[in-house]
Amino acid sequence: MAKKSQLKGNMVIAQSGGPTAVINQSLVGAIEEAKKHSEIQGIFGSLHGIKGILDENFIDLRKESAKTLEEVANTPSSALGSVRKKPTPEDCAKIFQVLQKYGVRFFFYIGGNDSAETTHIINQEARAANYDLHCFHICKTIDNDLRENDHTPGFGSGAKFVAQAFMGDNLDNRALPGVKINVVMGRNAGFLTAASALARVYPDDGPHLIYLPERPFNVEKFLVDVKRVYETNKRCVVAVSEGISDEVGVSIAARFSKETDAHGNIQLSGSGALGDLLANEVKTKLDISRVRADTFGYLQRSFPAVVSANDAKEARAVGRMAVKYAVAGDAISGSVAIRRKPGKAYKVFFERVPLENVAKETQHMPDEFINSDGNDVTKKFIDYAAPIVGPLPKIGCFKGVKVAKA
Amino acid sequence: MAKKSQLKGNMVIAQSGGPTAVINQSLVGAIEEAKKHSEIQGIFGSLHGIKGILDENFIDLRKESAKTLEEVANTPSSALGSVRKKPTPEDCAKIFQVLQKYGVRFFFYIGGNDSAETTHIINQEARAANYDLHCFHICKTIDNDLRENDHTPGFGSGAKFVAQAFMGDNLDNRALPGVKINVVMGRNAGFLTAASALARVYPDDGPHLIYLPERPFNVEKFLVDVKRVYETNKRCVVAVSEGISDEVGVSIAARFSKETDAHGNIQLSGSGALGDLLANEVKTKLDISRVRADTFGYLQRSFPAVVSANDAKEARAVGRMAVKYAVAGDAISGSVAIRRKPGKAYKVFFERVPLENVAKETQHMPDEFINSDGNDVTKKFIDYAAPIVGPLPKIGCFKGVKVAKA
Repeated sequence: MAKKSQLKGNMVIAQSGGPTAVINQSLVGAIEEAKKHSEIQGIFGSLHGIKGILDENFIDLRKESAKTLEEVANTPSSALGSVRKKPTPEDCAKIFQVLQKYGVRFFFYIGGNDSAETTHIINQEARAANYDLHCFHICKTIDNDLRENDHTPGFGSGAKFVAQAFMGDNLDNRALPGVKINVVMGRNAGFLTAASALARVYPDDGPHLIYLPERPFNVEKFLVDVKRVYETNKRCVVAVSEGISDEVGVSIAARFSKETDAHGNIQLSGSGALGDLLANEVKTKLDISRVRADTFGYLQRSFPAVVSANDAKEARAVGRMAVKYAVAGDAISGSVAIRRKPGKAYKVFFERVPLENVAKETQHMPDEFINSDGNDVTKKFIDYAAPIVGPLPKIGCFKGVKVAKA
Repeated sequence: MAKKSQLKGNMVIAQSGGPTAVINQSLVGAIEEAKKHSEIQGIFGSLHGIKGILDENFIDLRKESAKTLEEVANTPSSALGSVRKKPTPEDCAKIFQVLQKYGVRFFFYIGGNDSAETTHIINQEARAANYDLHCFHICKTIDNDLRENDHTPGFGSGAKFVAQAFMGDNLDNRALPGVKINVVMGRNAGFLTAASALARVYPDDGPHLIYLPERPFNVEKFLVDVKRVYETNKRCVVAVSEGISDEVGVSIAARFSKETDAHGNIQLSGSGALGDLLANEVKTKLDISRVRADTFGYLQRSFPAVVSANDAKEARAVGRMAVKYAVAGDAISGSVAIRRKPGKAYKVFFERVPLENVAKETQHMPDEFINSDGNDVTKKFIDYAAPIVGPLPKIGCFKGVKVAKA
């Protein structure tokens, strides 16, 4: 299949996993591109991921106006609904049966590593069943942990929310000093928690400590760190990833949660337990009276109008690219990866990579992004993340000339 | 003192209580106005409220450039620092001593009901001590619970954050259905929690249930409500005020917190306990698997760049008005109240009211803003709150024409 695909048929697109602020940009990018290619006839949206295929629950995306498409592109969360479902072999058999019945030859799945795995399984089953289906994964995840990608759509906007939240919270903590612990999303990778460092503008700005899942979390060490910062600054703002684990790899939050999803992931978000546990440790062990914890929870992935312009643009582009790759006929499957061009100016390009290269396993923050003490990020991380997140609100500060004592 | 004040001297301004997104607008409004009046000589900022007076810790606000003032005005949280301190008679004696020493004749305190009380006490003590001091309170509070005021600066922006958060979270919950409980700030008044209703755009949009401190919270009734909504919509988004109390007035959150501040207020924010408790009730009693809780915490009062334009404008104006009243000489003390002009178009005006009218006691949501079932707001509330909050992000939605079954 070195030439342009001779395949003609309908297309199904769906969204899966945790929503992001820009996942609909990818959806709309794919729809817009699909309309340009005669190979693609019907453009069907499957509701709630592959569940919509199993239920034959499709909407006709050619019936949506350009105005609606643009509005949906700028709306957070998954407009087609989402799902957390790993298909069984029986599900796959049923999926092909449905896709065949609907004349579907192009399948696009927007999601993270679990969704790439699902796409990979469907692709393999399609090959085994000799069903000619172009299967493409369109990357997204605020966790920023997809292999092959410099970064993933959704991360920039989630990181912008986290940075702005820390900007405000640092000012709040400066006004009413104490210890403030903020728990940030990120199951295995600390990128989103690390983005809190972008909030720093003035000397003494928090977060003063950043704990990532990439380093073992030790409660005693944490207390020593907090004590030191508090004694120096009379206050301390801490960023903690929900995914922090102890020396033997046991998640600190998991001690309080037993719920798991279909992919075996433990429920970390949607509970304030981890923050409250750490706040209680500081309160009781360090004898500091004003200790507070906030858990950013679902706000950080679906907050309207706090969006990185680069993130929105790139999310749209990966949707378009997936369709381009699918109709080009060079390959019948793949995932669209975002790469960064070397050099000072921030520029990205896209590449098709095999599904198995992004499926299932995730990637972590590289060592060069984490300080040696394991409680902060490096300048290299700031340089990496700043252009992905884009400009942040301007924070004003008084010069503060002291009035001479009377 | 019916004519313009003959009093000349220095001015001290300070900020107290919980920060807001626009409290610095009021500070800068007062500084700008003060510069216009020859009665006011030095413009001193006291750091961390009255604590700065006791510590003789002042900064010279005449030394700040117009550019810095504008930047600070647009920066959330209290630029002078804040404090939660109720002055003792000994503190007051010391305060007068310091103010006299520094030639201070104008005192402005930006804060809520507790800060109005502090201003009132200082004013009374000044009268008793025969010290000629103009004491003015400049209103702020995201809780919107100050008496005499149609609404208070800080509420509009806090409400905008809450409404946007619910917009996003409703879409998130639509994508991955379940029960989602969001805990919103508001100790005694439900205005901020009620503002979640502004998030509704399309039929079936959440929040589907809203629980306010103005009505007793009954866990059994709550479960019946959630069950009904969940059975109808297959999902349920709930807004709960942190200040909800049971039939005998015992705060639900207080069952989990023992910490109080100098004004006797129990710590409600900075912990996820209330949300987790309610989520656990739903999970165990209703047998619904996907139940999540988020506590918005401190994000809702200091988030940069999510600001109501009307709120910012009015906050600036109350700062200016306080100085105008102080130098006009009609009265030596008071608080600046925001009133709304009757009529369809949204217009406000300002009035000076006695300090004791806003001090200490707070006001609640009027009955006409709460539905008869005690689990939602009325259209009257929406009409009241919408212009204070201003325009919200546009939320797109597919028409969703179903593809005919093959």
